[in-house]
Amino acid sequence: MEPGTPIYVGENRSERVQIDVMRFDGETLCELQDIAIDSLSAQVGGSGVLWVNVTGVHDVEILRRIGEFFDIHPLTVEDIANTDQRPKFEDYPGYIFCVLNMIRYDKTANEIALEHLSIVVGKGYLISFQEEPGDVFDGVRERLRQSKGKLRTSGSDLCMYALMDAIVDGYFVAVETLGDGIEACEDNLFTQMDKVDLAQVHGYKREILDFRKSVWPLRDELSMLERSESELITKETRVYLRDVHDHVIQVIDMIDSYLGQLGNIHDTYLSMSSNRMNEIMKVLTTIATIFNPLTFIVGVYGMNFDNMPELHWAYGYALVWIVMIAVAAGLFILFKKSKWI
Amino acid sequence: MEPGTPIYVGENRSERVQIDVMRFDGETLCELQDIAIDSLSAQVGGSGVLWVNVTGVHDVEILRRIGEFFDIHPLTVEDIANTDQRPKFEDYPGYIFCVLNMIRYDKTANEIALEHLSIVVGKGYLISFQEEPGDVFDGVRERLRQSKGKLRTSGSDLCMYALMDAIVDGYFVAVETLGDGIEACEDNLFTQMDKVDLAQVHGYKREILDFRKSVWPLRDELSMLERSESELITKETRVYLRDVHDHVIQVIDMIDSYLGQLGNIHDTYLSMSSNRMNEIMKVLTTIATIFNPLTFIVGVYGMNFDNMPELHWAYGYALVWIVMIAVAAGLFILFKKSKWI
Amino acid sequence: MEPGTPIYVGENRSERVQIDVMRFDGETLCELQDIAIDSLSAQVGGSGVLWVNVTGVHDVEILRRIGEFFDIHPLTVEDIANTDQRPKFEDYPGYIFCVLNMIRYDKTANEIALEHLSIVVGKGYLISFQEEPGDVFDGVRERLRQSKGKLRTSGSDLCMYALMDAIVDGYFVAVETLGDGIEACEDNLFTQMDKVDLAQVHGYKREILDFRKSVWPLRDELSMLERSESELITKETRVYLRDVHDHVIQVIDMIDSYLGQLGNIHDTYLSMSSNRMNEIMKVLTTIATIFNPLTFIVGVYGMNFDNMPELHWAYGYALVWIVMIAVAAGLFILFKKSKWI
Amino acid sequence: MEPGTPIYVGENRSERVQIDVMRFDGETLCELQDIAIDSLSAQVGGSGVLWVNVTGVHDVEILRRIGEFFDIHPLTVEDIANTDQRPKFEDYPGYIFCVLNMIRYDKTANEIALEHLSIVVGKGYLISFQEEPGDVFDGVRERLRQSKGKLRTSGSDLCMYALMDAIVDGYFVAVETLGDGIEACEDNLFTQMDKVDLAQVHGYKREILDFRKSVWPLRDELSMLERSESELITKETRVYLRDVHDHVIQVIDMIDSYLGQLGNIHDTYLSMSSNRMNEIMKVLTTIATIFNPLTFIVGVYGMNFDNMPELHWAYGYALVWIVMIAVAAGLFILFKKSKWI
Amino acid sequence: MEPGTPIYVGENRSERVQIDVMRFDGETLCELQDIAIDSLSAQVGGSGVLWVNVTGVHDVEILRRIGEFFDIHPLTVEDIANTDQRPKFEDYPGYIFCVLNMIRYDKTANEIALEHLSIVVGKGYLISFQEEPGDVFDGVRERLRQSKGKLRTSGSDLCMYALMDAIVDGYFVAVETLGDGIEACEDNLFTQMDKVDLAQVHGYKREILDFRKSVWPLRDELSMLERSESELITKETRVYLRDVHDHVIQVIDMIDSYLGQLGNIHDTYLSMSSNRMNEIMKVLTTIATIFNPLTFIVGVYGMNFDNMPELHWAYGYALVWIVMIAVAAGLFILFKKSKWI
Repeated sequence: MEPGTPIYVGENRSERVQIDVMRFDGETLCELQDIAIDSLSAQVGGSGVLWVNVTGVHDVEILRRIGEFFDIHPLTVEDIANTDQRPKFEDYPGYIFCVLNMIRYDKTANEIALEHLSIVVGKGYLISFQEEPGDVFDGVRERLRQSKGKLRTSGSDLCMYALMDAIVDGYFVAVETLGDGIEACEDNLFTQMDKVDLAQVHGYKREILDFRKSVWPLRDELSMLERSESELITKETRVYLRDVHDHVIQVIDMIDSYLGQLGNIHDTYLSMSSNRMNEIMKVLTTIATIFNPLTFIVGVYGMNFDNMPELHWAYGYALVWIVMIAVAAGLFILFKKSKWI
Repeated sequence: MEPGTPIYVGENRSERVQIDVMRFDGETLCELQDIAIDSLSAQVGGSGVLWVNVTGVHDVEILRRIGEFFDIHPLTVEDIANTDQRPKFEDYPGYIFCVLNMIRYDKTANEIALEHLSIVVGKGYLISFQEEPGDVFDGVRERLRQSKGKLRTSGSDLCMYALMDAIVDGYFVAVETLGDGIEACEDNLFTQMDKVDLAQVHGYKREILDFRKSVWPLRDELSMLERSESELITKETRVYLRDVHDHVIQVIDMIDSYLGQLGNIHDTYLSMSSNRMNEIMKVLTTIATIFNPLTFIVGVYGMNFDNMPELHWAYGYALVWIVMIAVAAGLFILFKKSKWI
Repeated sequence: MEPGTPIYVGENRSERVQIDVMRFDGETLCELQDIAIDSLSAQVGGSGVLWVNVTGVHDVEILRRIGEFFDIHPLTVEDIANTDQRPKFEDYPGYIFCVLNMIRYDKTANEIALEHLSIVVGKGYLISFQEEPGDVFDGVRERLRQSKGKLRTSGSDLCMYALMDAIVDGYFVAVETLGDGIEACEDNLFTQMDKVDLAQVHGYKREILDFRKSVWPLRDELSMLERSESELITKETRVYLRDVHDHVIQVIDMIDSYLGQLGNIHDTYLSMSSNRMNEIMKVLTTIATIFNPLTFIVGVYGMNFDNMPELHWAYGYALVWIVMIAVAAGLFILFKKSKWI
Repeated sequence: MEPGTPIYVGENRSERVQIDVMRFDGETLCELQDIAIDSLSAQVGGSGVLWVNVTGVHDVEILRRIGEFFDIHPLTVEDIANTDQRPKFEDYPGYIFCVLNMIRYDKTANEIALEHLSIVVGKGYLISFQEEPGDVFDGVRERLRQSKGKLRTSGSDLCMYALMDAIVDGYFVAVETLGDGIEACEDNLFTQMDKVDLAQVHGYKREILDFRKSVWPLRDELSMLERSESELITKETRVYLRDVHDHVIQVIDMIDSYLGQLGNIHDTYLSMSSNRMNEIMKVLTTIATIFNPLTFIVGVYGMNFDNMPELHWAYGYALVWIVMIAVAAGLFILFKKSKWI
Repeated sequence: MEPGTPIYVGENRSERVQIDVMRFDGETLCELQDIAIDSLSAQVGGSGVLWVNVTGVHDVEILRRIGEFFDIHPLTVEDIANTDQRPKFEDYPGYIFCVLNMIRYDKTANEIALEHLSIVVGKGYLISFQEEPGDVFDGVRERLRQSKGKLRTSGSDLCMYALMDAIVDGYFVAVETLGDGIEACEDNLFTQMDKVDLAQVHGYKREILDFRKSVWPLRDELSMLERSESELITKETRVYLRDVHDHVIQVIDMIDSYLGQLGNIHDTYLSMSSNRMNEIMKVLTTIATIFNPLTFIVGVYGMNFDNMPELHWAYGYALVWIVMIAVAAGLFILFKKSKWI
C-alpha cells in the first residue's frame, strides 16, 4: 500500500459522516450543521476563524477530499483515518497537526474507552476529527455562541487550545473515577480482605497502563507545541498551552501515583494472604501434633499382649487419662510459650 | 468551564477570608491586620515592599478581585484557587508565580497533611495565599518587625525566599518525625518481630510516597527559579535560593533513603516470617513423622488374629516398647544429623 | 583478521546470489533480473535512479566487488556480510548506510525469524542486500512499474524510505500476531487457568524481548537519519522518514505494552496458582484436623483396660457416637466461623 | 531562625575547638598548633599559602568569627556547622566551598561512621573544618614539611586536592573492608548455608546504601569543580581533580557492584532455603503417606466383628505382614520413580 | 602516599618485565624483542611509528622510567600500574591515554579472567602495557610484518585502533562462550529440570555482571575518543573507531540480553519448582485425606463396648468394607471433579 493512503482501522460503522461548520470573528458567528462535503469547499478561505468539526473518520473518501480542500499532506490524512495512531504533534508547512485520545472510563465494565481525535490548525481555520458523536465540545461551542472570554476574538490557535483543554478536563474525570475504585480496593484490603479480588486489581492495572500509554506522549507533544517556532501559535496562546501542559503532567502524576498504589496493594495482598494462610496452617498443624502422641498412647493400650500389667491395674484407665491430659496440656503450654500458636 | 475561571476544590469552609498587609522598607514598617478587600486596592503601588498574606482561598470572588488589583493572569488566579495544583514555578510578564505545599505530619494518625500555598511576587509586592490560618510565617514576621538581617532592606524577592525557607524547614520536621517511626519499625524487626505490622509498613510507604510527590517538583521549580532570567530576582537572592534548593534536595535524599529502608523492611519481614514459619512447620512435621511408625506398630499388636505368636511371648510387651523407643530415637537422631530439626 | 574483511556468519547457504536491477526515472523504467556480477559494473553511473537488489550475502567475494563498483568503504562491506549486525545508520562520504532487520513471526513455532537487511543509498543509486528471497519488496516494485505516486519521480532517498516503510509495516503484522497469542493467554488466565502454561509465557517473553532488541535501535537510527545533514536526503523525504519513525515508535509502544502484560500475567498466574493451592491445602488440612480427635476417641475405647466403666454402659456406644458427632460439628462450625474453610 | 544562622546539629561535644595553622611557600614553612581564635585574624592575608585546619565545628561562635576574618558568606558558615549537610560544591564570590564526608567502616559493629568535612579555598588560603581530631591529613602535612612533590610550590587549590585525595583514599579502604564481609557472606552461601544470616545481609545493605548516599553527590560535585570557571583552580590542578573524580567513580562502581551482589545473595538465599525446606517437607510427607494405608490395614484387623474369616486363617497374620510390606514397597517404588523422593 | 606514585596492586609476580619494540613506516620495519629499559631511551623520537609493547606492569620503576622517556604525566603512570583501574580515556597534552580490560572466559571454572591493558598514543609512538604475556596482538604484529592493509602506512592512531579491535574481538569470543552455557541452562529448564542448578545460574549472573562492568565504560570512552578534538586522531581513523564503538555496543547488547535471559530463567525455575512441589504435596495430602475417614471407621469397630450391635451382624464386616470403599471412591471422585488431583 502506498504511504499516505488513508485506511480506517477502527470498528465497522455505517453512520454518515457529519460535518459541522462554525465561522466566527469578534462580531459575527455563523453556524451550519451537517453540511455536505461539496458545500464545504465553499467555506475555505474567508474572513474570521473557520471551525470544521468532522464526526466520523471511517469514510476515507471524505477525509481525502477535506485534505484536498485545505491542502493537507497525504500522510496527515492517513494519520487522521488511523484510529490506532498514538498522540503526536507535527509541524507541517502551512498547518499544525495534533493527535489526541479522548478518554472515558466505564465504571461498571472497568474499562477505558479511547476515542481518536485529530486537530488540524491552519491560518484562519481549525478542523477537528472525532470518531463518534459526543458532547465534549459543547462547552466550547456555547462559549463561542455567548461570546464569553477571548475565544471569539482570538485566532484558530486559541480555539485549538480550548478543544485540548476540554479533552484534558475529561482525563481528570476519568482518572478520578478510576482512582475511587482503587482507593475502595485499598480500604477493603485491611478491613474486609475477602472482598479484594486479584482479578480486579489486575484489571485496574491494565486499564491504568492503557490510560498512561494514551496520556504519556501528550507530555512531550504539548511541550513541543508550546515551544514550537510555528507562527500559527501566538505568544498569548502559549501561556494557555503551558497551562494545559501542566494539567497533563498532573494527570500523569495521578496515574503514576495510582500505579504505585496498585503495586503496593498487590504486594500487601500477597503478604497478608500468605500470612493468614500460615496462621491457619500453624494452628491446624499444632492441633494435629497434640493428638499425635495421644493417639499413640491409646493405641498402646489397645494392643492384645497377654502380659500387659497396666491393663489390670485398678486405676490404669484413670491413670492413662491423666497422662494423656498432662501430655496434651504440656504440649499446648510449650507451643504457646514458643509463640507457635 | 472557561479556562481561567477560579474553582475552589478543597474541603468546604465557611470562615471569612482574612487579608493581612505589611508594608516595609529599611526604615519604616506598617502592619494592617484583617483588612477588607476594598481597602486593599488602596495599597497597590506605593514605596517599599508590600506583603499581602491571604488566609483562605475558598472565596474565589476575593481572589478574582486581588487578581484585578495586581494585574494577575486569570490562569494564575485559577491555580491559586485550585488546592490540588502541584508545585510549580511560572514566569508571567510582570510577576513570578510559585505554588508549594506546606507539609505537616500527624504522628498519631500516621498521616501527611498538605496545605496549598501560592506566592505571587511582583515589583515591590508579594502576595502569599494560605489555605488555613497557621503560624508558619510568624518567624518571618518577627524578623521583619525586629528589623533583623537583610530582610527589611531587600526587595520582595528575598521576602519570597524567607517564606519558602520557612516552609522547607517544616519539611525537615515532618520527614524526621516520619523517619523516627520507620527507624523504630526497623529496630523492632530483629528484636520483637511480633510488633511489626505490615499494615503499618504499608501506611508509612503511602505517606512517604505522598510526601515525595509534593516535594519532588520543587527540585526543578527552585532550580528554574534560581536560574530564571526574571529581573525580579536579584543576584544576591539567587545565592539564598540555591541554599533552599540544596535543602529541598536534602529532604528528597532523606525521603528516598526512607523509601529504600521501607522496601528493605518489607523484604526482610517477609523473608523472616517465612523462615520462622518454615522452622515451626519443620518441627511439627518431624514430630508427626516420628509418631507415624509408632502408631503403626501399636496398631499391629491391636489386631485380633488368632495366631499372633508375639502376643503370647512373656516379654512381648516390653520388647515392643524397646522397639518403639529404638525407632523413635533412631528417627530423631537421623533428623538431627540431617539438620532437619 | 584485518578490519574491513567481510565474513558471513549466518547459516550455510549454497544458493547462487541473485542480483536484480531496476533503473527508472519519471518516464522510463528498465528492469533486469538475475544479472551476472560482471554486467553490474556497466550499470554504475547513468541517468535516473538505479536500484540494485542483492539476494544473498553469503558470497563475500560478490559483496566485495559490488563494494568496489560503488566505492563503498570496506567496513560497510563487512557490516553487510555480518548478519548479526545490529540495526544502525551511518553517514559515509558519498553514501548513507542503513542496517535493519526484517521480522516475521512464526505462530506455530512461537518464534521470531529475523532477516538481516542492508541498504546503501548514494547519489542516483540504491543497493539493498537481503539474506533470503522474499516478496516484501514486491509492493514497491509494483508501484514503480505502475508509476503510481511520487516514487518514480523522486530520488533514491524516497526509494529507501519505501523499502523501510515496507519492512516496518511487516513489524506491525508480526507484533500483532504475537500480541493475539498473549491476549488469548491472558483471557485463559481467568477462565481456564489450566490451559495457561508458564513455559508458553516464558517463550512469549523471550520472543518479545528479541523483537524489541531488533526494533529498539531503529528508533535512534531513524531519528538520526531524519535529522542528518546529508545532502542525499531531500526535505520532502524527511517528512516521510518522520512518518516511518512514528510507526517504529508505535511498534515499540506495542512491544512494551505486551511486555508489561506478560509481566502482569506471570505475577497474576503465580498469585492465583498459589492462592488456589492454599485453598485446597486449607480444606484438606481442616478435614484431617476434624478427624484427629475422632480417631483419638475411638482409640480410647479400643483400649483393653479391665476397668473401663463406659464400655459396659447400656448406651455407651450410642453416647460415644453423639460425642463424636458433636466434636466434629463443633470443629466444623468453629472453622466455618473463623472463615478457615 | 534567620537563614545563615549557624546551628550545630551533631552529638554533644565539650572539647575545645582546636585551630592549627600552616603557612608555606616554596621555600619556607611555618607551623602553629592550637592557636587562639583571636590570633588567627593576624594570619589573614600575607604571602604564600595559609592552611587553617579547624578541628570541631560545635562552637558556632568560633565559626562565625572565622567567617568574618575571611569574608565568608553566612550561608557557608551555616553549612559548615550543619554536620548533616550533604556533599556539595559551591562557587561563592572570592572563594570555593566544598562539603565532603570522611567515611570509616567499623567492621565489628558493621557500621559506617561518617564525619562531616568542609573546605573553604580562597586566594592564598585554605580552611578545612573537621568534626573530630584524626590523622587522615597527616600524610599531607608530612609531604608539606618534607617539601616533597609540587604541593609546596603550588597554590591553595592543589592543597585542596591533596585533602580530597586523602579522603577518597579512605573510601577505598572502607569499601574494601565492607566488600570482604560481603564476599565472605557469598562464599558461605553455597558451602555453609547455616552461617548466612538475613539480618547480616540486611545490615550490609543498609551500610552500603548509607555509603552510596555519601559518595554519590561527590560525582557531580567533582565534575563541577573540575569544569568550574573559577580562577582559583589552575589548569594543572584540574588534571589532578580529574584523577580524584575518576577514583570517586571507581568507588561508586564498587559500591554498585556490592549492592548487586547483595541482591543476588538475598535472592539466592531465599530460593535455596525454600528449596531445602521443600525437600525436607517432601520426604516427611512421603513417609507419612506410606504409613497411612499401613495404619489403615492394621486398624481393619483390630476391629471386633464376630465374623471376620481372615482373623482365623492360619497364616492370616503373616499374610497381612506380606500385604503391608508389599504396599509400603510399592508406594516407595512409585514415589521414587516419580522422582518425588 | 603522594598522588602520581605508581603502585602495583595485582597478584605477586617475579617475572622480568619484557619490552618489545617495533618501528615501522610504509617501507621498512624493524623489530627488537626483549630489550633492556636503558636501550629504550635511544628509541624515543626517530621517524615512522614506534610501537613499544611492555609485558608486565609490576615493576613500577620501569614504568616510571618509560614515563620519563616519553614525558608521561605521573598520574598516567599511576593508572598504568593500577591493575584495578576501570576503563577510561583521557586526553593529556601531547598524548592520549586509554585503559581497557582484556577478557577471557574460562569455561570449566565458569570464570571471567580480566587483564588490565593501558595504551599511550603520542605523535609517532604508541606504548601498550599488558599484565601477562599473551598472543592477542600477534595478528596485529603479523599484519604489520606482512605489510597488509593500511596499518603500515598510517600513524600511531590506526595502530591503537588495531589493538583495540583485537581486544574487542576477544570480547565476542568470551561473551559467546558464556552465552552458550546460559542457553544450555535454559534448554535444560524445560526438558531436564533436575540438571538446572541455582548455584550455576547465580555464578553465570556474577560473571556476566563482572563482564558488563568491564565493557560498559568502553561505550562512553570510545564515543569520547571518536569525537575528541585531539589532533593525534585522523579523520580516517575516526571511521574505524566508530566501527569498534559499534562492536562494543553489540557486545553490551548481548550481555544485557543474556542478563535478561538469566533473570527469566531464575524466575521460571522458581515458579516451576514451586509448581511441581505443590503438585506433589497436593497428591500426598489428598491420599492422607482419603485414609483419614477410613482409619476412623476401622477405629470405631475396634472399640470394646459391650453393646455394639453392628459387630454381631452376619454381614457387618462385609458391610463396613463396602462403606469404606464407597467413602474412598466418593472422596476420590469429589477431588477429581474439583480438579484437586
